[in-house]
Amino acid sequence: MSNSDRVRQILSWYSSDNPGVLTNLARLMNTGTLAGTGKFVILPVDQGFEHGPARSFAPNPAGYDPDYHFQLAIDSGCNAYAAPLGFLEAGAAKFAGQIPLILKLNNSDSLSKVEPASALTGSVRDALRLGCVAIGFTIYPGSTMRNTTYEQLRAIILEAKEAGLPSIVWAYPRGTGMAKEGEQAADVTAYAAQISCQLGAHIVKVKPPKEVVYQDEAKKVFDKYGIPSKTLTERVKHVVQSCFAGKRIVIFSGGEAKDDAAIMDEVKQIAAGGGFGSIMGRNAFQRPRDAALKLLADVMAVYKSA
Amino acid sequence: MSNSDRVRQILSWYSSDNPGVLTNLARLMNTGTLAGTGKFVILPVDQGFEHGPARSFAPNPAGYDPDYHFQLAIDSGCNAYAAPLGFLEAGAAKFAGQIPLILKLNNSDSLSKVEPASALTGSVRDALRLGCVAIGFTIYPGSTMRNTTYEQLRAIILEAKEAGLPSIVWAYPRGTGMAKEGEQAADVTAYAAQISCQLGAHIVKVKPPKEVVYQDEAKKVFDKYGIPSKTLTERVKHVVQSCFAGKRIVIFSGGEAKDDAAIMDEVKQIAAGGGFGSIMGRNAFQRPRDAALKLLADVMAVYKSA
Amino acid sequence: MSNSDRVRQILSWYSSDNPGVLTNLARLMNTGTLAGTGKFVILPVDQGFEHGPARSFAPNPAGYDPDYHFQLAIDSGCNAYAAPLGFLEAGAAKFAGQIPLILKLNNSDSLSKVEPASALTGSVRDALRLGCVAIGFTIYPGSTMRNTTYEQLRAIILEAKEAGLPSIVWAYPRGTGMAKEGEQAADVTAYAAQISCQLGAHIVKVKPPKEVVYQDEAKKVFDKYGIPSKTLTERVKHVVQSCFAGKRIVIFSGGEAKDDAAIMDEVKQIAAGGGFGSIMGRNAFQRPRDAALKLLADVMAVYKSA
Amino acid sequence: MSNSDRVRQILSWYSSDNPGVLTNLARLMNTGTLAGTGKFVILPVDQGFEHGPARSFAPNPAGYDPDYHFQLAIDSGCNAYAAPLGFLEAGAAKFAGQIPLILKLNNSDSLSKVEPASALTGSVRDALRLGCVAIGFTIYPGSTMRNTTYEQLRAIILEAKEAGLPSIVWAYPRGTGMAKEGEQAADVTAYAAQISCQLGAHIVKVKPPKEVVYQDEAKKVFDKYGIPSKTLTERVKHVVQSCFAGKRIVIFSGGEAKDDAAIMDEVKQIAAGGGFGSIMGRNAFQRPRDAALKLLADVMAVYKSA
Amino acid sequence: MSNSDRVRQILSWYSSDNPGVLTNLARLMNTGTLAGTGKFVILPVDQGFEHGPARSFAPNPAGYDPDYHFQLAIDSGCNAYAAPLGFLEAGAAKFAGQIPLILKLNNSDSLSKVEPASALTGSVRDALRLGCVAIGFTIYPGSTMRNTTYEQLRAIILEAKEAGLPSIVWAYPRGTGMAKEGEQAADVTAYAAQISCQLGAHIVKVKPPKEVVYQDEAKKVFDKYGIPSKTLTERVKHVVQSCFAGKRIVIFSGGEAKDDAAIMDEVKQIAAGGGFGSIMGRNAFQRPRDAALKLLADVMAVYKSA
Repeated sequence: MSNSDRVRQILSWYSSDNPGVLTNLARLMNTGTLAGTGKFVILPVDQGFEHGPARSFAPNPAGYDPDYHFQLAIDSGCNAYAAPLGFLEAGAAKFAGQIPLILKLNNSDSLSKVEPASALTGSVRDALRLGCVAIGFTIYPGSTMRNTTYEQLRAIILEAKEAGLPSIVWAYPRGTGMAKEGEQAADVTAYAAQISCQLGAHIVKVKPPKEVVYQDEAKKVFDKYGIPSKTLTERVKHVVQSCFAGKRIVIFSGGEAKDDAAIMDEVKQIAAGGGFGSIMGRNAFQRPRDAALKLLADVMAVYKSA
Repeated sequence: MSNSDRVRQILSWYSSDNPGVLTNLARLMNTGTLAGTGKFVILPVDQGFEHGPARSFAPNPAGYDPDYHFQLAIDSGCNAYAAPLGFLEAGAAKFAGQIPLILKLNNSDSLSKVEPASALTGSVRDALRLGCVAIGFTIYPGSTMRNTTYEQLRAIILEAKEAGLPSIVWAYPRGTGMAKEGEQAADVTAYAAQISCQLGAHIVKVKPPKEVVYQDEAKKVFDKYGIPSKTLTERVKHVVQSCFAGKRIVIFSGGEAKDDAAIMDEVKQIAAGGGFGSIMGRNAFQRPRDAALKLLADVMAVYKSA
Repeated sequence: MSNSDRVRQILSWYSSDNPGVLTNLARLMNTGTLAGTGKFVILPVDQGFEHGPARSFAPNPAGYDPDYHFQLAIDSGCNAYAAPLGFLEAGAAKFAGQIPLILKLNNSDSLSKVEPASALTGSVRDALRLGCVAIGFTIYPGSTMRNTTYEQLRAIILEAKEAGLPSIVWAYPRGTGMAKEGEQAADVTAYAAQISCQLGAHIVKVKPPKEVVYQDEAKKVFDKYGIPSKTLTERVKHVVQSCFAGKRIVIFSGGEAKDDAAIMDEVKQIAAGGGFGSIMGRNAFQRPRDAALKLLADVMAVYKSA
Repeated sequence: MSNSDRVRQILSWYSSDNPGVLTNLARLMNTGTLAGTGKFVILPVDQGFEHGPARSFAPNPAGYDPDYHFQLAIDSGCNAYAAPLGFLEAGAAKFAGQIPLILKLNNSDSLSKVEPASALTGSVRDALRLGCVAIGFTIYPGSTMRNTTYEQLRAIILEAKEAGLPSIVWAYPRGTGMAKEGEQAADVTAYAAQISCQLGAHIVKVKPPKEVVYQDEAKKVFDKYGIPSKTLTERVKHVVQSCFAGKRIVIFSGGEAKDDAAIMDEVKQIAAGGGFGSIMGRNAFQRPRDAALKLLADVMAVYKSA
Repeated sequence: MSNSDRVRQILSWYSSDNPGVLTNLARLMNTGTLAGTGKFVILPVDQGFEHGPARSFAPNPAGYDPDYHFQLAIDSGCNAYAAPLGFLEAGAAKFAGQIPLILKLNNSDSLSKVEPASALTGSVRDALRLGCVAIGFTIYPGSTMRNTTYEQLRAIILEAKEAGLPSIVWAYPRGTGMAKEGEQAADVTAYAAQISCQLGAHIVKVKPPKEVVYQDEAKKVFDKYGIPSKTLTERVKHVVQSCFAGKRIVIFSGGEAKDDAAIMDEVKQIAAGGGFGSIMGRNAFQRPRDAALKLLADVMAVYKSA
């Protein structure tokens, strides 16, 4: 299968990487409904670890079963399915070769309310033996442990590269150094995305930025240079630009469950702003399967025509 | 993309392997014209190292260029392209993600006529950084160095498995302990295939067996139990049976260049005997590109309808 | 290309280093407009990580693109371009061999207002695979984490030396133990430079010292021995002297963006004081490209005639 | 300094390599009289080890002094200077940064007349601490130890790549399995060059092929396909083609000392055949310095206008 | 204590080495009667291992006692004392700081008459814990094991350098590939010295070359270029020149026991030829102590006035 011109162009931005990393980036881009478009819809299911099982799966109890998510990702035409070790291990052999897998290497439970920090729950070696195409890793800029996490990530990115695996960074500003209203602020989201790219992320995942500019120094700059941030589209544009002028792939999470209309509106604005796609967990697997398949198809249609 | 029933069945024979190995076996089986059929046509180009450049590429000088073979494998709809380090390295970044790659880890030149023995010319780490889906390795049953080679292979298969890579063994009976007429004998070919499977090969590659039974002990058994070996189809059946009752993939090389009719006849007999496919080097890349594309299409059509 | 007498003299101060380190120091000194003069103008772009993307690149949005800075450093005739992993990785293959690269191995974001501390965001191995001529590292003398950082630096300098890479230390006095007015004080700047040299830095980077002597003990000595610190030139002289009587290269940052006249005045005083050069980030890449090229040319002209 | 279009084109053939390797290839191509042309003249001085001191240096006793060769390579405008550990170590600090260095990692003395085999006399770590831009390694296809040597080389190439260093292979067919007349035969030289490329060499060095086709199988192919091999130019064309259709750099040794006219004739034919350059040892350093400088200038002029 | 001009000059030839290696070279040159002259008389006592105790010590039974040799080296004003592990260990604590020690890292016994090959009998770590200033290592150019030995030496030199220890190579051409009359031939001795220097030896030790030119190719060159080799002085000159034009220290062994006059004649010729000194074992410790002290004083007087 030949790479489309767009896929070639995107790969050209990663020319310092070895052919293994490029191959797995291409696999991500050549899979599913959006194959060849350079756009992404990824199904992530780490909420069982992060939020607990009932909060995650009670809305659609089929989701307690790990097989459910593999099949949903395949049937909906996603580019990939991302999960922690256990969920992947439960289905990786059965579904081998049917959907690119992303092993989320660190995760944080919410059994105690503390400063956010993730535990390493998987390794590059696990990703290889499970047949994954990439590893995922969460950072919490603004938290007291941020630097320790950056250093873990740096070492993992280097190890993953040598194994031919690209790295996807979940960037969630959060923690002691960051007020609640800053977590999804336009400036902070763009900054967290920039940090991820500087750390060597091949793909960055952030939340859709809200209409807030949080840092005083950033506010001055947004005002002085008239950086538009009124609409989500405008804010997404700023985030995309902050990912090396669009030369690093950045995708947006769906966040908390909401209704179809709200999601479709959000997705259209992300696509209009040049976002590379969506990573949509709860809004996919917490719906009944048919509703989820329909929603994901609609979302992919937006990106396909973007 | 879902796996076909046949692909699922084949993967079920490798259930002791980890999901990484299964994923890469599935990638091989889900690529190209024969995707989903469980059949294989692979383009191997190691002749530059094994026989020298002029003998390999003078018939079709386009083949001096490593890019040519990547493109031929892609355009002809092969399942994979196999080559030594240098040839893969020359195009792996440019063609990343377009064709599954197999790194041939050992190779032997023919500048001196000595007991056959291959040098390790690549490693599992190389296979990972180049984005390969499998490693290839040649053994010479019958040669004085055979046991050393089996031991190298054993270690490499284990290392490759941990990295999620299946192993493909080129089994060529040859050497001091083996007369010329034994090299492609029906019993010897089946025996070499069995050795490869016992060593842990996921895929075995042998030459089409000739109408000879070479070993005295084997002759007695072929006679006593009436093992048919008159036609190539019959002999292929015996080889397939010798690969764990058909539960290990075995494919057949095309050997020296010959005309289209001879090749098609051979392929039909291989297919009729239950062979999983062909690995066709000189008969592909030494033809003009159009002729090669036509021939490979014809060969694939045979396997598709088998 | 022969080394100039001045380059030879400077290299002679590093005679305990191996030829690899000397070679890379020579590369830095034999590149760009100032080749052969022993003077330096370096383009550093770590502000995306340190200050965030909008604050860094909104003034000249071309700078969101990592390629822009490689090209600016090349076209302006800089000695080198310094940046964190992500920015270097984005262009290192494309611009290979065109400009010496310095990998900044640690960086600190400003998403939370806490005690300054940098995370290790790169490694000596990264510097080698990216083709860098040196590594960069930031210390914050006066911060609570200073000793941990010094220890990291010590280990990295040793590892870098074995790989033939010199080390450049960004020395920024800052943190709990240091009042705001001390951060750029003449005595403190000289002290931080001395610490860097004592830790084994081959090149030190400090801010232009202000007309303050901060430490009581230092004040007594400045008074008793009449150390002049009225003009920037005088203060630079003291810093240069504090870098092993001028036998370690010390360069000065431009700091916040200001107008051309202010910069040129500062640069002239640095040059007059014996400073080895400028490392000029925001004052370069935040100007329109033409203005940046003109300014850098003017700055280089000052050093050339110094 | 920008890379010329030709340098960019050559680097594009090595796109699977990391930026460090590309940077050092660019350094080789951006140095000396031939900077930017993609052509090479390299000074190698390993004869003290390979042939003994008197045979090497008596014709021009200045060459006993290691400094002499550094200075000759610099003053003549060579792209690089290649030598074993001791000779490089003797001058690497003194001449740091003035000429790219290539550390020859294995060498063979001629104190006993035995099957050719080289000892490892240096390491990648040595190359880094000495500031080298590449490593050199000799193979003897046709010798009994060839496979062991190929395996050493394979491991060294991988280690060197990780350190950002390209590998240059000296390919000398020789040994028990190769008659004297085969050593420089057209087919054998092309074959040895192909083997080197397949092993991962970035640059190959062979002797100018003679008007012999040595292997019977090759003779048939040369005849059948009318591969011209009457003139050196024709034979060089075949060698260049055998180096991946000219996508791997191949340079030619000068061999034994001869007069200027003979050398210039040879060089013109190499250049006409598309050879990338010459590596000229004895014909350079065994002449008086002025004669060597003139000869090297004349040789470079041929390549420059090729 | 300042280094003399001559010591400074000699150290300048080792400028690629680290200060630790230079410091230990300086210790060797700043000890004993010849301190500051750049000349050497070293006492080596490895004959107990190499030839057996009675052959070594019966002529002067005091030599059975390891203390004897430490005291002899000290009292005679030698630059250093060299011995295998056991002999050094026996006195290293008692005589700590009184005489520079050289640990001979490999040794060969003569209990069986076989192809010469030494065993590693000590390590760099041993040399450090015993307070040695250098390590010693024997190579046998011309023997079948030569390449293995060169590779051991290469690794040891690198390890010793990192520990700040220079390496002294005992170069004895000998073995299957070398006829008896070649072992001390002028050309062979010079060649063995060159090999040692190329391998990275800081100091080379050879036997005084005899009036033979052994290799045919060398004979032609000696004749053609009129290299004088009639007198020992002339041959020593050639050896010194072959040690990088005199930029590597080369010293000469005394060989078998002989009378004072013969020794003094030899020493005078070595000194006249530019040899850096003598390493004198049996001719020292097999004489009665007073005679040995007198002889060594006479030898040193020759070098002092050279």
